[in-house]
Amino acid sequence: MAAPKGKVLLAYSGGLDTSCILAWLLEEGYEVQAYMADVGQEEDFEEARAKALGLGASKVHIVDLRREFVEELIFPAVQTNAIYEGVYLLGTSLARPVIARSQIQIAQAEGCTHVSHGCTGKGNDQVRFELAYYALAPGIQVIAPWRVPAFFNRFQGRNDLLAYAAEKSIPVVQTAAKPWSTDENLFHISYEAGILEDPNVTPPHDMWKLTVAPEDAPNTPERIHITFEAGRPVRVVNQDDGTAVTDPLDLFLYLNALARRHGIGRVDIVENRFIGIKSRGCYETPGGTILRVAHVDLEGLVLDREVRQYRDEHVTPAFSKLLYNGLYFSPEGALITSTIAASQKNVNGVVRLKLYKGNAVVEGRFSETEKLYDMEESSMDVQGGFSPQDSEGFIKIQSIRLKKWGGKF
Amino acid sequence: MAAPKGKVLLAYSGGLDTSCILAWLLEEGYEVQAYMADVGQEEDFEEARAKALGLGASKVHIVDLRREFVEELIFPAVQTNAIYEGVYLLGTSLARPVIARSQIQIAQAEGCTHVSHGCTGKGNDQVRFELAYYALAPGIQVIAPWRVPAFFNRFQGRNDLLAYAAEKSIPVVQTAAKPWSTDENLFHISYEAGILEDPNVTPPHDMWKLTVAPEDAPNTPERIHITFEAGRPVRVVNQDDGTAVTDPLDLFLYLNALARRHGIGRVDIVENRFIGIKSRGCYETPGGTILRVAHVDLEGLVLDREVRQYRDEHVTPAFSKLLYNGLYFSPEGALITSTIAASQKNVNGVVRLKLYKGNAVVEGRFSETEKLYDMEESSMDVQGGFSPQDSEGFIKIQSIRLKKWGGKF
Amino acid sequence: MAAPKGKVLLAYSGGLDTSCILAWLLEEGYEVQAYMADVGQEEDFEEARAKALGLGASKVHIVDLRREFVEELIFPAVQTNAIYEGVYLLGTSLARPVIARSQIQIAQAEGCTHVSHGCTGKGNDQVRFELAYYALAPGIQVIAPWRVPAFFNRFQGRNDLLAYAAEKSIPVVQTAAKPWSTDENLFHISYEAGILEDPNVTPPHDMWKLTVAPEDAPNTPERIHITFEAGRPVRVVNQDDGTAVTDPLDLFLYLNALARRHGIGRVDIVENRFIGIKSRGCYETPGGTILRVAHVDLEGLVLDREVRQYRDEHVTPAFSKLLYNGLYFSPEGALITSTIAASQKNVNGVVRLKLYKGNAVVEGRFSETEKLYDMEESSMDVQGGFSPQDSEGFIKIQSIRLKKWGGKF
Amino acid sequence: MAAPKGKVLLAYSGGLDTSCILAWLLEEGYEVQAYMADVGQEEDFEEARAKALGLGASKVHIVDLRREFVEELIFPAVQTNAIYEGVYLLGTSLARPVIARSQIQIAQAEGCTHVSHGCTGKGNDQVRFELAYYALAPGIQVIAPWRVPAFFNRFQGRNDLLAYAAEKSIPVVQTAAKPWSTDENLFHISYEAGILEDPNVTPPHDMWKLTVAPEDAPNTPERIHITFEAGRPVRVVNQDDGTAVTDPLDLFLYLNALARRHGIGRVDIVENRFIGIKSRGCYETPGGTILRVAHVDLEGLVLDREVRQYRDEHVTPAFSKLLYNGLYFSPEGALITSTIAASQKNVNGVVRLKLYKGNAVVEGRFSETEKLYDMEESSMDVQGGFSPQDSEGFIKIQSIRLKKWGGKF
Repeated sequence: MAAPKGKVLLAYSGGLDTSCILAWLLEEGYEVQAYMADVGQEEDFEEARAKALGLGASKVHIVDLRREFVEELIFPAVQTNAIYEGVYLLGTSLARPVIARSQIQIAQAEGCTHVSHGCTGKGNDQVRFELAYYALAPGIQVIAPWRVPAFFNRFQGRNDLLAYAAEKSIPVVQTAAKPWSTDENLFHISYEAGILEDPNVTPPHDMWKLTVAPEDAPNTPERIHITFEAGRPVRVVNQDDGTAVTDPLDLFLYLNALARRHGIGRVDIVENRFIGIKSRGCYETPGGTILRVAHVDLEGLVLDREVRQYRDEHVTPAFSKLLYNGLYFSPEGALITSTIAASQKNVNGVVRLKLYKGNAVVEGRFSETEKLYDMEESSMDVQGGFSPQDSEGFIKIQSIRLKKWGGKF
Repeated sequence: MAAPKGKVLLAYSGGLDTSCILAWLLEEGYEVQAYMADVGQEEDFEEARAKALGLGASKVHIVDLRREFVEELIFPAVQTNAIYEGVYLLGTSLARPVIARSQIQIAQAEGCTHVSHGCTGKGNDQVRFELAYYALAPGIQVIAPWRVPAFFNRFQGRNDLLAYAAEKSIPVVQTAAKPWSTDENLFHISYEAGILEDPNVTPPHDMWKLTVAPEDAPNTPERIHITFEAGRPVRVVNQDDGTAVTDPLDLFLYLNALARRHGIGRVDIVENRFIGIKSRGCYETPGGTILRVAHVDLEGLVLDREVRQYRDEHVTPAFSKLLYNGLYFSPEGALITSTIAASQKNVNGVVRLKLYKGNAVVEGRFSETEKLYDMEESSMDVQGGFSPQDSEGFIKIQSIRLKKWGGKF
Repeated sequence: MAAPKGKVLLAYSGGLDTSCILAWLLEEGYEVQAYMADVGQEEDFEEARAKALGLGASKVHIVDLRREFVEELIFPAVQTNAIYEGVYLLGTSLARPVIARSQIQIAQAEGCTHVSHGCTGKGNDQVRFELAYYALAPGIQVIAPWRVPAFFNRFQGRNDLLAYAAEKSIPVVQTAAKPWSTDENLFHISYEAGILEDPNVTPPHDMWKLTVAPEDAPNTPERIHITFEAGRPVRVVNQDDGTAVTDPLDLFLYLNALARRHGIGRVDIVENRFIGIKSRGCYETPGGTILRVAHVDLEGLVLDREVRQYRDEHVTPAFSKLLYNGLYFSPEGALITSTIAASQKNVNGVVRLKLYKGNAVVEGRFSETEKLYDMEESSMDVQGGFSPQDSEGFIKIQSIRLKKWGGKF
Repeated sequence: MAAPKGKVLLAYSGGLDTSCILAWLLEEGYEVQAYMADVGQEEDFEEARAKALGLGASKVHIVDLRREFVEELIFPAVQTNAIYEGVYLLGTSLARPVIARSQIQIAQAEGCTHVSHGCTGKGNDQVRFELAYYALAPGIQVIAPWRVPAFFNRFQGRNDLLAYAAEKSIPVVQTAAKPWSTDENLFHISYEAGILEDPNVTPPHDMWKLTVAPEDAPNTPERIHITFEAGRPVRVVNQDDGTAVTDPLDLFLYLNALARRHGIGRVDIVENRFIGIKSRGCYETPGGTILRVAHVDLEGLVLDREVRQYRDEHVTPAFSKLLYNGLYFSPEGALITSTIAASQKNVNGVVRLKLYKGNAVVEGRFSETEKLYDMEESSMDVQGGFSPQDSEGFIKIQSIRLKKWGGKF
């Protein structure tokens, strides 16, 4: 017999919240399928599958999105040096498009009329998921229980959820809950809420999961070379042990491992949510931090000045903001994304880095193919490339309008 | 008897180049006064004074510009988080306006018809000095010997200068010349040219002058609090030894000392000069690096989202670029600078930092006066500030135009 | 006896909608005061006052805001050449801040806990009024009946309102309703909805109220001079009859009269509302259109190139958008507005215009005080201002980076 | 025998200046070929060919570039609504890339080592031509006689040129020289210099060549429909006489004819040259003006709000500026141009226009394929598309940060 209210594809994590939501949706009269996206987070997917089925899910979908996450989202973010409010590398935002897209694809294949998620009503993620849903499937119906009064009035705290779990025989893991929330994927982990809500509380030493503290990192630096083609990393070579990696996913995971060891990629900020409130977030983005340092550096060597400036002013902020606000799938998203490849054709070369106690230090860079940098021309000692008198004319022309303004100091 | 060609105020450093220029200007028939700006560089000003007088300068002016450099240029740069091409904190660029302004003031007071400098014809500094000269004194005449054929054809290398120095009895310091050039002030030091012209050459360990290497920094972190008012640092307190500094110049020099000890503030980049060529520069900006980290962080806590975004997109890049290009004294410079104070009214608060082996790590921040961050409101656990249904409407309204575009993936 | 639910200050127009709202608010248990803003619209304020009192309003406030509308909103819009989506001169948006501010001032003086308005739930005006209310009085409560189910479900069309009016003895004007809605003030009138909702329907000849059709305008042009100081119009002189006007309000109304006669200032567009939907609007902005043409022209003569470009890219679009979206009273509004005066210091001079059948044609301009334009310098026939060789150097320097890219066509 | 100094391809117009330059280049020892680009200007090309050959040109190239001018430059300018300083439609700038590219192609095919032109040393065109030359052929050598002292010192005025013409038997047309200069192509004509150098001189009635005065235009309007596909005009239909045109070149010339008849497309401005000086220019851009009005209007109907805003802020100003400054062939030019097509995919539809005495008035617009505009949704009278409560939530969320700032008025 068909569920009276239709079929829902629920983004499921295996945790207390989405397990209760699963049970509640069934109680409300929906057929529920569970959907789990593997974007590289640490998770026991098979245990979660069993749990969802045990709760009454009619089907469980577990999808490995790690490769498309790296190739379609992370690498373009590297190419644009994407960053939010000067500090945050957008780790959660970057995963949302691949997760939402896959959820919609499955929902459509399975004939689901609804999708559902466990995001709160105060955060960015509800916006990111739902704007993607609506953009990709305008007719889809969304159930956001944490915004449904019947749900949020019934479950006013963790104890209500635990009581419901007991009633519904939902297995609850007996580990003590951490006093913060996390969102993890292969690019980053975020920590927020709980004790972190006071922006003056220093995150505890044992909170950080993806990197060691700089203080605990080796006393000896490690050196690597990263090769970029068209702005995408294509090869990492460890200069100390000769390890070489080229597969995009492997390469990224290898950089994560290196950065973890050397304590690279932690930030702690107060940021502005799309929803208009400020929130405090701590983030670890190990491999992504190294890649950003290297890519920014290589662009100095091989990118034309005006291309760089245009990209910095007109692409990077717009791209970063649309990712943060959940507008990757949008008309403007398509337009802005189309400029990325056009800006990166010449970003070919190698950056040499030293990793040491929280620092990713550039020690040199070169490009076999791109010759915008010209040693002789830039030399202060050599006459080359152009005549000093050219500078004279350049300055004189630049000064014409300044002289008109002159004298006002 | 008046000099047949007029009176020149030469920006003088005491080094080989400007000493030869001084002698050459006299030979050409000018009266020459020497001008030295103290912007915090390591220099024996009195020795240089004696040298200039010995060479025939009719007067030597030595002006302490350190305080106005900190208060009028460095602090506004901190307020705007000024940065060039994502990495360079603009240390040389920031000093140029105060140096050029003072040189013009003296030139006018002394009745000089000309000003002169020792900058090469390929660099940014010739542009920065001269655009400032022309903007402040439209009628001034500029002598840039390194762009005058009679000069640069005669002095084609260091040996020609040394020979001329011998001929003119110009004392030459007998230290071996470093295989790079530097420009130093209290905000930073730059290294370029010589062996650094190959962008793949790692700067030698003993090049760096203002900071220790992270590897040589203490194994124990040091903690400080920096208080900002209207975006300007007004107090630094060392949490380990209780040192407190409030005078702007002292405060800045104290941060320099701390950053030096902990190896903070080195960068190594290839940048794009205004003159259209790329060049490689290494920079140490110790105190400025700490201030930038702290100021960016505090803005997260106290600045309105849209003010921050407007400033980030419309003020910071424009301000940074005009400093780099030598257009601080310009109509647009006056306009852009006028927005800084308006953007910083609410940037009041304290940032807590840990300094450790190259890292300036934010450990927390608070503001007694600014309440844009609201713990309850941003809490995921508490119903506060607004209703979850408001988010529903917000998302629905945002999705209207996306649904029109929908389905194209 | 105090009203059980509190005191409301209702933005009242005297029309059917707000009269029904007034009656309904009383029925709901509020004390109601009526508020009417005179921003230059054609209206019988005293008749409306009597009507409101007759309906049960405890007090009626009629405030003449015309002068502050001109001086605080319209003239800054002229100074920035404010325009939305390339065509719309923002006439409705510009009036909202003065109306909302005055409403809040009165509400606070009268101890009203609530404010109310008659805007629909699909338009921009609800947003503009309410964001201003909340920004100016964070604790104020807003009643928007057209978004209250008890109201909008009860009054589903004009007939329901008419029935309610009959029941409540609300006098209804017996003129046939126009098949479109209007919003009028001294800067403009808008027409939308009704037959205009089909964007391919040409507005009927008799719709336009503030201007004659170009076809009906005189066959003889009329000529005027407009003098600007700091970008604000300070004097209009009619060259044909010698009329001279200098008072800001009079000057603006005089330009309206001239533009009306010559059929100047009509536009018809499809625009994008803040609320995410497109709508078709027709607008007449007679005097404002002449002022925009004249001000843009004068800036060509007296504004520095880079100031103009900075303002055009970083101020005009931002200022226009924040007006349109109702964010004039906001942190970013304060910041952006602060740049206007700084950009207009030199906008002093006179523009000569010919008005003829829909056209405001610039026939010349001059400035007694600003000398950025230099006839000799710009002359192609005269050697002046700078040497042709300077251009040579300028071009050579500009070409350095292009040659690197060269050959790719 | 080969010319001792090499072979020059001279951009030749048949006029006095370039004829003298041709003769002078021969005198200087170059072999000279003449190059004439047909971009739609009124010119007797065959007479000029004979003249050049008579003067000693070894070859004359006359190239019809009209079609590529329309399709590759003018239509992209229409797609981006390109405009300089708010008024100028860039007619001269748009022709330069096709002229320079063809000149370089011929120079390379003919083995010319040099190219030459007759532009003055104070204008924009020298920059536009030469930057294009250097970008397309980095090794090319440029001879700009008006910047060569041997030339400009010898020919200090028109009389010197006439004397040289007599000496070299260069035929001189016996018409009185107009007291201004012009540059003409099928998109526009410019007038500058001479009596126009006084920005307060009204251009004489008989100066204007491509349009009648609005006063002289018919008293009866004419109506047309313009169909756009992907932002490019593909069909113009005259509603009065049924004329229909679809070929790009014919279509553009037909719009020119209509606009000429109705006095559409004149502007008179003071603009800022790249070279840093202001100059006064008068321009007629008949067909281009109609196309701009129509294209801007259609975008209102069919372009997503955020795409339009992104394009307006990040593409239109950048594209316009690079055209004006002669940087069409540049790395950033390639990047920016790449965004145009991506922004125009949905710009499909028909605009209905009335042409009357200087005005191009939009009377309606529709699109068979694009459905972003939704009458029901935007209707104020109909409940459709979304619920009024959604607006409530939208406003509440927007107000969160404003309430924090609140009360400061």
